[in-house]
Amino acid sequence: MSMTSAVKAILDKYESDNPGVKANLARILMHGKLGGTGKLVILPVDQGFEHGPARSFAVNPPAYDPHYHYQLAIDAGLSAYAAPLGMIEAGADTFAGQVPMILKLNSSNSWATTKDQAVTGGVDDALRLGCSAIGFTIYPGSDHFFELVEEVRELRAEAESVGLATVIWSYPRGGELTSAGELALDVGAYAAHMAALIGAHIIKVKLPSDHIEQKEAKKAYEGTDWSKQSDRVAHVVKSCFNGRRIVIFSGGAAKGADQVYQDAHDIMAGGGNGSIIGRNTFQRPRDEALEMLGKIIAIYKGEA
Amino acid sequence: MSMTSAVKAILDKYESDNPGVKANLARILMHGKLGGTGKLVILPVDQGFEHGPARSFAVNPPAYDPHYHYQLAIDAGLSAYAAPLGMIEAGADTFAGQVPMILKLNSSNSWATTKDQAVTGGVDDALRLGCSAIGFTIYPGSDHFFELVEEVRELRAEAESVGLATVIWSYPRGGELTSAGELALDVGAYAAHMAALIGAHIIKVKLPSDHIEQKEAKKAYEGTDWSKQSDRVAHVVKSCFNGRRIVIFSGGAAKGADQVYQDAHDIMAGGGNGSIIGRNTFQRPRDEALEMLGKIIAIYKGEA
Amino acid sequence: MSMTSAVKAILDKYESDNPGVKANLARILMHGKLGGTGKLVILPVDQGFEHGPARSFAVNPPAYDPHYHYQLAIDAGLSAYAAPLGMIEAGADTFAGQVPMILKLNSSNSWATTKDQAVTGGVDDALRLGCSAIGFTIYPGSDHFFELVEEVRELRAEAESVGLATVIWSYPRGGELTSAGELALDVGAYAAHMAALIGAHIIKVKLPSDHIEQKEAKKAYEGTDWSKQSDRVAHVVKSCFNGRRIVIFSGGAAKGADQVYQDAHDIMAGGGNGSIIGRNTFQRPRDEALEMLGKIIAIYKGEA
Amino acid sequence: MSMTSAVKAILDKYESDNPGVKANLARILMHGKLGGTGKLVILPVDQGFEHGPARSFAVNPPAYDPHYHYQLAIDAGLSAYAAPLGMIEAGADTFAGQVPMILKLNSSNSWATTKDQAVTGGVDDALRLGCSAIGFTIYPGSDHFFELVEEVRELRAEAESVGLATVIWSYPRGGELTSAGELALDVGAYAAHMAALIGAHIIKVKLPSDHIEQKEAKKAYEGTDWSKQSDRVAHVVKSCFNGRRIVIFSGGAAKGADQVYQDAHDIMAGGGNGSIIGRNTFQRPRDEALEMLGKIIAIYKGEA
Amino acid sequence: MSMTSAVKAILDKYESDNPGVKANLARILMHGKLGGTGKLVILPVDQGFEHGPARSFAVNPPAYDPHYHYQLAIDAGLSAYAAPLGMIEAGADTFAGQVPMILKLNSSNSWATTKDQAVTGGVDDALRLGCSAIGFTIYPGSDHFFELVEEVRELRAEAESVGLATVIWSYPRGGELTSAGELALDVGAYAAHMAALIGAHIIKVKLPSDHIEQKEAKKAYEGTDWSKQSDRVAHVVKSCFNGRRIVIFSGGAAKGADQVYQDAHDIMAGGGNGSIIGRNTFQRPRDEALEMLGKIIAIYKGEA
Repeated sequence: MSMTSAVKAILDKYESDNPGVKANLARILMHGKLGGTGKLVILPVDQGFEHGPARSFAVNPPAYDPHYHYQLAIDAGLSAYAAPLGMIEAGADTFAGQVPMILKLNSSNSWATTKDQAVTGGVDDALRLGCSAIGFTIYPGSDHFFELVEEVRELRAEAESVGLATVIWSYPRGGELTSAGELALDVGAYAAHMAALIGAHIIKVKLPSDHIEQKEAKKAYEGTDWSKQSDRVAHVVKSCFNGRRIVIFSGGAAKGADQVYQDAHDIMAGGGNGSIIGRNTFQRPRDEALEMLGKIIAIYKGEA
Repeated sequence: MSMTSAVKAILDKYESDNPGVKANLARILMHGKLGGTGKLVILPVDQGFEHGPARSFAVNPPAYDPHYHYQLAIDAGLSAYAAPLGMIEAGADTFAGQVPMILKLNSSNSWATTKDQAVTGGVDDALRLGCSAIGFTIYPGSDHFFELVEEVRELRAEAESVGLATVIWSYPRGGELTSAGELALDVGAYAAHMAALIGAHIIKVKLPSDHIEQKEAKKAYEGTDWSKQSDRVAHVVKSCFNGRRIVIFSGGAAKGADQVYQDAHDIMAGGGNGSIIGRNTFQRPRDEALEMLGKIIAIYKGEA
Repeated sequence: MSMTSAVKAILDKYESDNPGVKANLARILMHGKLGGTGKLVILPVDQGFEHGPARSFAVNPPAYDPHYHYQLAIDAGLSAYAAPLGMIEAGADTFAGQVPMILKLNSSNSWATTKDQAVTGGVDDALRLGCSAIGFTIYPGSDHFFELVEEVRELRAEAESVGLATVIWSYPRGGELTSAGELALDVGAYAAHMAALIGAHIIKVKLPSDHIEQKEAKKAYEGTDWSKQSDRVAHVVKSCFNGRRIVIFSGGAAKGADQVYQDAHDIMAGGGNGSIIGRNTFQRPRDEALEMLGKIIAIYKGEA
Repeated sequence: MSMTSAVKAILDKYESDNPGVKANLARILMHGKLGGTGKLVILPVDQGFEHGPARSFAVNPPAYDPHYHYQLAIDAGLSAYAAPLGMIEAGADTFAGQVPMILKLNSSNSWATTKDQAVTGGVDDALRLGCSAIGFTIYPGSDHFFELVEEVRELRAEAESVGLATVIWSYPRGGELTSAGELALDVGAYAAHMAALIGAHIIKVKLPSDHIEQKEAKKAYEGTDWSKQSDRVAHVVKSCFNGRRIVIFSGGAAKGADQVYQDAHDIMAGGGNGSIIGRNTFQRPRDEALEMLGKIIAIYKGEA
Repeated sequence: MSMTSAVKAILDKYESDNPGVKANLARILMHGKLGGTGKLVILPVDQGFEHGPARSFAVNPPAYDPHYHYQLAIDAGLSAYAAPLGMIEAGADTFAGQVPMILKLNSSNSWATTKDQAVTGGVDDALRLGCSAIGFTIYPGSDHFFELVEEVRELRAEAESVGLATVIWSYPRGGELTSAGELALDVGAYAAHMAALIGAHIIKVKLPSDHIEQKEAKKAYEGTDWSKQSDRVAHVVKSCFNGRRIVIFSGGAAKGADQVYQDAHDIMAGGGNGSIIGRNTFQRPRDEALEMLGKIIAIYKGEA
């Protein structure tokens, strides 16, 4: 497929990055059924770390096999596949060159006693496994936020120097944030903006609610109607350097298909670049997952 | 002995590893009386660190001598011998080339005030001593889990680069886990899965009980009868990349011989790759230990 | 495009390489109009170094512009574009992600007083520019051959460790080789074999004549009719680990289109993997070059 | 002064360079009386190394003082000042921030027994002294050309990584080149092209004669009238990636003022980016030098 | 197989080597049909480098395939397989763990204009490929001998530190040695002794003739009858630290089977440790080669 103007326009916004980083962003943006549209859908499978294998895969047992996820991402024509070291290694040879990969470099788990994550891979791993990007989670609000930022700052610098892109999962959590606050619009926009400030090439946040968490921020949000999800998406996109950075959204826990499609419509309408969708696909039977991913892709192509 | 299809099938699952790592896995899998079967029995002797010498060896005084354990592993035809630096060094020259060795790189002790371990060896030690693998313990659940993960991530990357395999002992402990929870099925499967995600080539866990610890996980386990130990073993194996990684089980404290044999039968029936068995052998008189190991090997050969 | 069995079969032969190297080989083998066929056509533009700008580009002045060559490779649907540092840098941002690139790391020139080359780039350059492979020329027979080998040995090891493939141009030259000997069948096969032994992932040699240069080798070639070019190609392919390595052929100086097509037919018939064709394309007007490359591609697709 | 479109157009051609390199190129291109025009005049003072102090400075004794040259470059409104380590150090504090500096990193001298140069400074020196670029001389044709290329390849890579630009003096010399050949059009264009291939940001060559040195190149030059110096300049510019790289010309030995002006007119007419002019200025009394530089600048501004 | 006293006695002589080196020597000495006897037969396939592919393999075309040699070494029950980087890589994954490998780290070729070799691999390669030893050729007598010695000194030190054994091919060649002198008894013994002094764990020399080359050495050899090959072997063995180092012999060019067997008998009788035999096996049809290797092994087992 030839480079499209939509993708070229996105790449041009990464103006200080070297051609290697751009080529890897291009690999993701030109791959799969959304290749060339400037939209993307990524399959992330780090739930084994976060929630354990049974909660993640028992509902759809073939998903215990790492090859299942590679094949799902390939067959659904997704833009990229993101997972921790072990999951990537277990299929990197079989599927070499078949789908862009994002090596998730840190992970938490259900038993964590702090709002922190462990580094589980390196830039050298990403290179030897043929990945296009590294992934890293930060927890804005957490007592460990500064440590997480300093870790990703070093990894991002190393990745940049070898032409790999950096994807940052920015999840407000911990500290003085309330539970509702973790999904608040002001908090989500703030978290996305910090990821952009740290140098993320792709920013991954949750779809925000219309709650405003911070007292000091209320004034800035007053007088605008935030009830439409697409407007909230647009606000997050604007917060990422006025749309100069790719922003993708996750939907969180498994939910009804209609809500998943509505989310995609809202992300599309708000100018988001796409979805990162894990449990909602691999926890459904493969046929249903493929059908759902097909519909999401159709939405991002403006065909549904 | 020629390479068997059983072993070749296992090696092929380590698809992203270099030939050096595979050759060392092959050394373990092709060695001893179980060589070629795809099953393995490993003798670990790190109890001196964990419990002190008297609690470990007084019941069978010849076991105070490091040579005793090398000789036991060799005479019993075991697959490998695992121990900390000092124990390995005390016999590595005498027994060079006679049994694959796993250098245990971290250890705790009875007086530890945290659920953590100290790093006591390095990859360079493993190479100069002629070991085939490094070993490392992680404590999922512990406040120190993230540190342990980051330590093993670096050691594993270094070991991989020089062709050594990595064995991870994954022992849930500490944090909010209850005592029963440390042996719970959901916890054990999760712990094994995390070891796989970190990149373990061989995963070592305890045989799990039928207790389900995590409230959030109960749903995933409901409706299945977990009373048979072999089913629980199968669940752990499935949690290790659907059987793409070697999983071996320990029996814990010394117990009756019949229970030891029953455990081996259950591991065999559940598709586990074998046993790692320390106190149950070296705390018995040598003749009894050899007899017991002979029976266990017979079980894994399908002859008992 | 999905991975094809033809390409998968080739990748499987690189059994000791990490998934990164395989992914980069896959990028080349799956790109362009020959993507998926196992055949490839590469555009090399290092003639500016070797012969100077006027001899290289005056006949087709748009070719003075580095962008011209990127665009030619892209529009013709070639598999990859190979050039020295300056040429790659002059278009790497504009064309990021549009065609696999091979960074040629050494070069000679018309005034060289020894049969040697200068190193003009590094593996770090290849990474930051988004290249899939490094390229390096060796001169078997030259007094400087051992130095060239030691240079490429280090660069290849570094490239391998970061997942980049290595392409070796193996051009017999200098020492006691006669002029006819540089193109001799025995010499070309030997040169290709040495590139394979050094660890080349893609081997680039000239189409050999039916001359046998080495007295000691005559016996091995006697009794076989080497008059057909396709048989000579097949012998070179056999000399590259019995076809376990990708071998591509250059046609040398600009020549008649019919001879260029016949060469491609012979490479195809002899089991070669394709052509690396520079002067014969960029020294023709763009329309003619595109038509010629289209026909060559058709030949490799078995359609002409 | 605001960035001009003329300079922006030049910077955009350095598409793979990081913003640091571009900012340093911009500093030179936006400085002095030609700032913003896309033209530049540089004062180089390395003749002390090349010819010794008396031959260089006795005719205008104030020029023995390094401050003299800084002040001349500043007062004349030149674009940059280039000199070896000692000369730069002797005024870098006094004139800090007053004129862009190019640290010349290698030098030869009158007694050299080989066509080679000694490295006399490093990228670290350039940084600590506040320079905008490094300078390096290569001798295409020399027996030491490959060594010089490998030296500048490493220095250029280091300079690039810290955001410094690289200026290459490309002077054909030695080997089989005749004396006339050193100034031949084909040779000069080739030398300039190789500097571009090595990654020079600014290429410095001598104004070429209409002699064609290489037998093999004659065909490429036949049928064109090369008698006009401006056409020869245009050919060299075309040989530098079709004008994608800044090319400046030196006039060589001191000569009549009229010839100096004619040279500037020809460089201007041929699309060259300017002059690097040393002996023709600092070997004249300061007033005359300032007047001459004023006229040259007027020519490049299109005002003379 | 349990460690034998024959092998243990050999290992004990390597008294300053670490257990890693001994374990790797043990792997070779305990492997294959001669495992445990203290004798060894190694298959070396570096003739592709030394003589080119056609001279090496055309007589037995299946030998063009690197897998052929691995399989031959395995099926014949040899002690180890030695080859350069590319040959080892082309089968290291398929045959991982099936035969001890020696990575040959330098090589020459038919066109070499000096008595030297190029380094083509490193200790890191040997580790990641799972080799037990590195191999290196020195040319005592050559103008390049000191360089070769200094290269192997560094590689041997690095190999030692990571537990790999070092095999040195010691081939007198060049300088003032006559052609007959290269095979002379005094020269061969001297060459073997220097390999021992450099730190070789296994020394590989040619079977010496009864010629005495060095005038100064004649007195030392006078009065002894050197007509029996087994006595000459014994002298070489004695020259390698009185038998404290493993010494193996090559037979050189392909020759009659009877002579090959006689050589083995003489090596056995003289106390040599075995044969390294390449062309005499892989240049015969596989069945004949297996038969020949079977007989050689029988000779070393004292059964023929």
